Amino acid sequence: MTDDELSWRRMGSHAGPRLPLFDVRFDDMEHPESGEVLSRLVLSSVDWVNLVALTPEGASVMVRQYRFGVGYPTLETPGGMVDPGEDSLTAARRELVEETGFTGGTWSYLGAVEPNPAFHDNLCHHWLAEGVVRTRPQNTGGGEHIHVTLMSEAEVRAAVQDGTIRHALALSALARVFDLWPRPFRQPPPA
Amino acid sequence: MTDDELSWRRMGSHAGPRLPLFDVRFDDMEHPESGEVLSRLVLSSVDWVNLVALTPEGASVMVRQYRFGVGYPTLETPGGMVDPGEDSLTAARRELVEETGFTGGTWSYLGAVEPNPAFHDNLCHHWLAEGVVRTRPQNTGGGEHIHVTLMSEAEVRAAVQDGTIRHALALSALARVFDLWPRPFRQPPPA
Repeated sequence: MTDDELSWRRMGSHAGPRLPLFDVRFDDMEHPESGEVLSRLVLSSVDWVNLVALTPEGASVMVRQYRFGVGYPTLETPGGMVDPGEDSLTAARRELVEETGFTGGTWSYLGAVEPNPAFHDNLCHHWLAEGVVRTRPQNTGGGEHIHVTLMSEAEVRAAVQDGTIRHALALSALARVFDLWPRPFRQPPPA
Repeated sequence: MTDDELSWRRMGSHAGPRLPLFDVRFDDMEHPESGEVLSRLVLSSVDWVNLVALTPEGASVMVRQYRFGVGYPTLETPGGMVDPGEDSLTAARRELVEETGFTGGTWSYLGAVEPNPAFHDNLCHHWLAEGVVRTRPQNTGGGEHIHVTLMSEAEVRAAVQDGTIRHALALSALARVFDLWPRPFRQPPPA
């Protein structure tokens, strides 16, 4: 089936309620076979970025912070939103220094993912920074409260496999740098 | 820093505007050091599930469908929402047969990820189904339009590396079954 045969046609669109983080939109979408028109939610936003930062000794610079969605602290890679006018590399460098105080390093692009193409219209860009050094104080502003922790590759892998690190976008970035899983990674099913 | 020292206290909460897919909520959260109270968005929802389904010949059962967030067809693993009262295995089996008509197989749990702990409160569960066979017609209902495609492991890996498959949650499931990346997976930066 071609992309054209799979594609729904947008017949109209209107703004939804105001929210932080997203511009909410409802699109009137025409089913490519039935012709039925259905309203579909879109959460439009800037792109996101996260990064794997390695010290000269090969430790990963990781962050712990309380996350308001899940309601507990998570262990993650540094990252955040790409501000208007920024490119993703500038955003990655900015987020790294703000959240951790680490700067410098040699930067490589690791690719991008769709956080959830069903309703998000943005991408999350992954970067690798090799050889970063702590040169500055952390500067998160009053809206964040972040603890920096350095982890060896073995510690990262263990934290992934025991579920301590389970933010999908952090895992996505880490998986492009480290071999995280024995495969297939069978686990006991949830209770 | 302990989890307690990182944790914000919820001082209040109120419902936000009605949306499909999510219960929107605003929590009044107290910063653990400054004591400032900030309003934070939560998109509350059921858990999600996706799965890697392999035929007896080892082909992956993949789906192509137009995604309303990004506005183009994507190539993904089968998956969807865990309905109220379902467990994630039941949901995975249901989504597989609805989207593809494949049934049977030996099922293993691959673990769960937080789709985005910053504002989602749910998990996405990953399952592996080995030995599935097409026994039924596809039955997606009128709200979806899905093309099923069988791919070899080499084809999956190529589609991941060239960016054809870039749904973060699909990649997360696939990465627990297949070795997807040369590491580090350096790419040309975005234009």
